[in-house]
Amino acid sequence: MAPTRGTDSGPVNQLRSNKPGNAVQIIGRSSSLYTRVPLVVAHELGVPYELAPVFDLTTADSAVYGNNPALKIPSLRRAGSVLFGAENVCRALEDLSESRRRIVWPEELRSDLSRNAQELVWHCMAAQVQLVFGTIIGKLDNIYFTKARAGFEGGLRWLDEHCKLALEALPAERDISLFEVTLLCLIEHLEFRGTLPVDPYPSLVAFARTYATRPAAQQTAYRFDPPPEPVATEAR
Amino acid sequence: MAPTRGTDSGPVNQLRSNKPGNAVQIIGRSSSLYTRVPLVVAHELGVPYELAPVFDLTTADSAVYGNNPALKIPSLRRAGSVLFGAENVCRALEDLSESRRRIVWPEELRSDLSRNAQELVWHCMAAQVQLVFGTIIGKLDNIYFTKARAGFEGGLRWLDEHCKLALEALPAERDISLFEVTLLCLIEHLEFRGTLPVDPYPSLVAFARTYATRPAAQQTAYRFDPPPEPVATEAR
Repeated sequence: MAPTRGTDSGPVNQLRSNKPGNAVQIIGRSSSLYTRVPLVVAHELGVPYELAPVFDLTTADSAVYGNNPALKIPSLRRAGSVLFGAENVCRALEDLSESRRRIVWPEELRSDLSRNAQELVWHCMAAQVQLVFGTIIGKLDNIYFTKARAGFEGGLRWLDEHCKLALEALPAERDISLFEVTLLCLIEHLEFRGTLPVDPYPSLVAFARTYATRPAAQQTAYRFDPPPEPVATEAR
Repeated sequence: MAPTRGTDSGPVNQLRSNKPGNAVQIIGRSSSLYTRVPLVVAHELGVPYELAPVFDLTTADSAVYGNNPALKIPSLRRAGSVLFGAENVCRALEDLSESRRRIVWPEELRSDLSRNAQELVWHCMAAQVQLVFGTIIGKLDNIYFTKARAGFEGGLRWLDEHCKLALEALPAERDISLFEVTLLCLIEHLEFRGTLPVDPYPSLVAFARTYATRPAAQQTAYRFDPPPEPVATEAR
């Protein structure tokens, strides 16, 4: 495959210039809910990266997805190895990071409340992608998506009612948590793609508004990657 | 909601009779890929449970799913609390267990190979449920499912090629790993539902045949739960 490497007109990454030549590559999209999770973590941890945008999500050619056989993004490529999946990439970024910033991982959540909250964020993330791809791109309307939407809205309602307690239950000695990062990425993606109205979920919106002021959030705001410039793209 | 409690004609659970009155309740289906994961873990750890079967997966009434707002199974109910999601339930079963059996959790996988293998098992599990529900129950045929199927088969091919190394990379000092349990449940579910032929994946089938000889696997073999008997079911 021929990833679009960072250029002056390429993906914005304020970290990239800090350590040129030392950057790992994240294969994904600036408009992707799952891609943004490791992008936020990379900025929080100060890990330099290049974004290799994937432009066509309808193709079944795994080379387009960094050889991920599941045809999904994001992946992390470095040192001749490729790692698949948002949470995996986040863990590898921590491995790579020289910072001592403290991340709270899902396995540290011990109460039913906290575990349910992370489970429902993951569920709503999957439902969001399913709705965007299935009903907007695939133009489907079916019991399959009717139930998915009901479970999606149910999950959001539960999260809206419980997010305050779930946030308070996080270990105080932390810099970030995967729960907060995934919740931010979920809520802002609802607004970015217009899948569902967010007005019914004021607590979630209030959390996202506050968390979105962090530099790592601002530097990874959702946007559609500009198409590759011919001069900067190798032939495939 | 009115769960169907264990009766003489109810769900088979050889552990149940060991500690009557001390059992937790797992809300799910004996035919469900995601439900079987914690059932296997419960048997491996010797945690008594009752299975509360969910008979209608098309309803959008969360009470039917043990109040899981995402309308999914499995959930774990005990002591007035409900926990959602297969991996969460497995972790809670370990918390409840008095055994010292050693489980390897996904966060202990450190290499790209091992992390990718678990990621692709999770991906294939989701794709399997998507295909069963979307194309068998929902009767859909669309780019949405065409790509899902391609990514599903790609994931299985990758797993077939890499499972030997991924299994060898697991810590030797273990009783079980979530990787092995999820892989067993995935492969046997393909055969149970006939979604995809398994012949192209001989290494995966060989693993499943061996792992299926464990008592915990045999006691949780997929089957459709018999409909509730009127006398044993409270009115809702």
